[in-house]
Amino acid sequence: MYIALDAMGGDYAPQSNVEGAVLFAREFNIGVYLVGNKDLLEKELKKYDTKDLPVEIVHAEEVIDMDEPPSIAVRKKRKSSMHIAAKLVREGKASGFVSAGNTGAAMAISKFVVGAAEGIERPGIAVAFPTKKEKPTVLIDVGANVDCRPRHLIYFAVMGHTYAKEILRVSDNPKVGILSIGEEEGKGNDLVKDTYPLLKMTKLNFIGNAEGRDIFTGDFDVIVCDGFVGNIVLKTSESLGSIIVEMIKNEVKKSLVSKIGAALMIPALKRFKRKADFAEYGGAPLLGTKGTCIITHGRADSRAIKNALKAASDFEKTHFNDRLKENIDNLLPEELKG
Amino acid sequence: MYIALDAMGGDYAPQSNVEGAVLFAREFNIGVYLVGNKDLLEKELKKYDTKDLPVEIVHAEEVIDMDEPPSIAVRKKRKSSMHIAAKLVREGKASGFVSAGNTGAAMAISKFVVGAAEGIERPGIAVAFPTKKEKPTVLIDVGANVDCRPRHLIYFAVMGHTYAKEILRVSDNPKVGILSIGEEEGKGNDLVKDTYPLLKMTKLNFIGNAEGRDIFTGDFDVIVCDGFVGNIVLKTSESLGSIIVEMIKNEVKKSLVSKIGAALMIPALKRFKRKADFAEYGGAPLLGTKGTCIITHGRADSRAIKNALKAASDFEKTHFNDRLKENIDNLLPEELKG
Repeated sequence: MYIALDAMGGDYAPQSNVEGAVLFAREFNIGVYLVGNKDLLEKELKKYDTKDLPVEIVHAEEVIDMDEPPSIAVRKKRKSSMHIAAKLVREGKASGFVSAGNTGAAMAISKFVVGAAEGIERPGIAVAFPTKKEKPTVLIDVGANVDCRPRHLIYFAVMGHTYAKEILRVSDNPKVGILSIGEEEGKGNDLVKDTYPLLKMTKLNFIGNAEGRDIFTGDFDVIVCDGFVGNIVLKTSESLGSIIVEMIKNEVKKSLVSKIGAALMIPALKRFKRKADFAEYGGAPLLGTKGTCIITHGRADSRAIKNALKAASDFEKTHFNDRLKENIDNLLPEELKG
Repeated sequence: MYIALDAMGGDYAPQSNVEGAVLFAREFNIGVYLVGNKDLLEKELKKYDTKDLPVEIVHAEEVIDMDEPPSIAVRKKRKSSMHIAAKLVREGKASGFVSAGNTGAAMAISKFVVGAAEGIERPGIAVAFPTKKEKPTVLIDVGANVDCRPRHLIYFAVMGHTYAKEILRVSDNPKVGILSIGEEEGKGNDLVKDTYPLLKMTKLNFIGNAEGRDIFTGDFDVIVCDGFVGNIVLKTSESLGSIIVEMIKNEVKKSLVSKIGAALMIPALKRFKRKADFAEYGGAPLLGTKGTCIITHGRADSRAIKNALKAASDFEKTHFNDRLKENIDNLLPEELKG
């Protein structure tokens, strides 16, 4: 098995990407195609002992910038590292691809170069949020589809179910909710009100409306929403998390006693940070494409890259798309299929 | 000036409500009508020295439960403390009312008993979020209006502008944004794309799309959104904030050294908590009603009640609704009025 890594994408590319690939190949003995500028990558790779490691460089002469519009990335920059990594998946040489680069571009390239999986109209991005409990909650979609119809949310629910069950292994029959305001049926906007009865018709373990606060309680395994709301929730949460840490740091700086206190707390804070770190869960997969596409944070370090590669290989190992197809067949009533 | 307080609403009613009212009347010498069960309130009030304090009890025999549907609250329980407090505003005896009770009911009662202000079709709830900077950012609407049209968001923008300028005093010309995904014009869902050009037509200091992360940076003074998205953002943020604190506490408990560290950090953590506490800003006002309506958290303690009463009196002192009317006249082009 090989995973294609966009070795040029992300704030710390190619250093972190190469290091992450080496760590991954060493630990799991799974192959990695490092896609990007050959000279740069060879130089980076020399820093490590890669004898017998299944790490191969595939040259790509272009790089997609972080602020490049996705349409340009797809149509104009066909020699980019992201494009070529996706092509390796389309051609069956790699089973999935990982990028820490421009999220919109990675999504568009997955969709148009790799293509949607059989029976899927709209792939969706899933993110595993840390919760109070020892297991994450999957929110889907967090940005691939801005305006959605009820039908799309039903498919997100099946994708989220499959992800929570097969990859995150949080439950054999994940509890599914729909993001809304108010707990009772009938509360929410038009999209929620139209989707709710359809979710009840499925064989999913649908337990009703989830509110904003439920994302972090762990009471739901999967929460579906349109990509507009989901993206705002994701960015709000990431930002609030880092600002709380910063505010605490600033307060602590104001006194020597607090500083000493903070120093003593460092191990606990580090454990917390690891727990709250979205990267720990291996980035955000775009579910419902033919091959696997994992999008990690632009700030991805080598550990995050390694985890994302691991996640991509898990998708292949668990035959994720076969499971997804079965679930669509088994969990959805006929009138919601096709 | 008198403010009507729903003395029976909230988790710690009537104790905290009465204490908050006494603290407020003592500090600002502004009148409070304590609305609720006369016997209970008299007993509570005896705990304090209220000689010469302008605190008066107004009897109400019913209480609206936290889970009572708003429609029942408005139509069936006309003798509730919330209802009678709102009626005092409608009759001009009080200039505003404050409730820590059932939010949906408080909103519905404000709308139907007090009524919308002149020229306002849809009142909206504003929340002041703490930011990295020393000033809050106003998000409006956080739940009064689930499905919105562009016109409603334009009015929310003017209400938010007036609130940020007159009450929070963050700026003379508050920077206004619209919550979306992606910074550039043209990014977002249909509602955002339709509202953006209309916001550009106003004389508001409109600076474009705000992303989820911008709520806490302090780069915007006012961010508008529909009540569905706003409510989810509010609840997500409140929940994440408290869960982060809980996760840190749990990590700290695991070692004695961390416990000592945490103990030393207590003053810094308290300062942080005060800063991050939404209650500090005096609850969430429902903007665009004839009188002032301030909704505080169900968990409101006496300090939060006092701050909410203070906020209600600030609305009256600054002639908020007159300022709002002027701003609608001056900032909106003719085609967006009426």
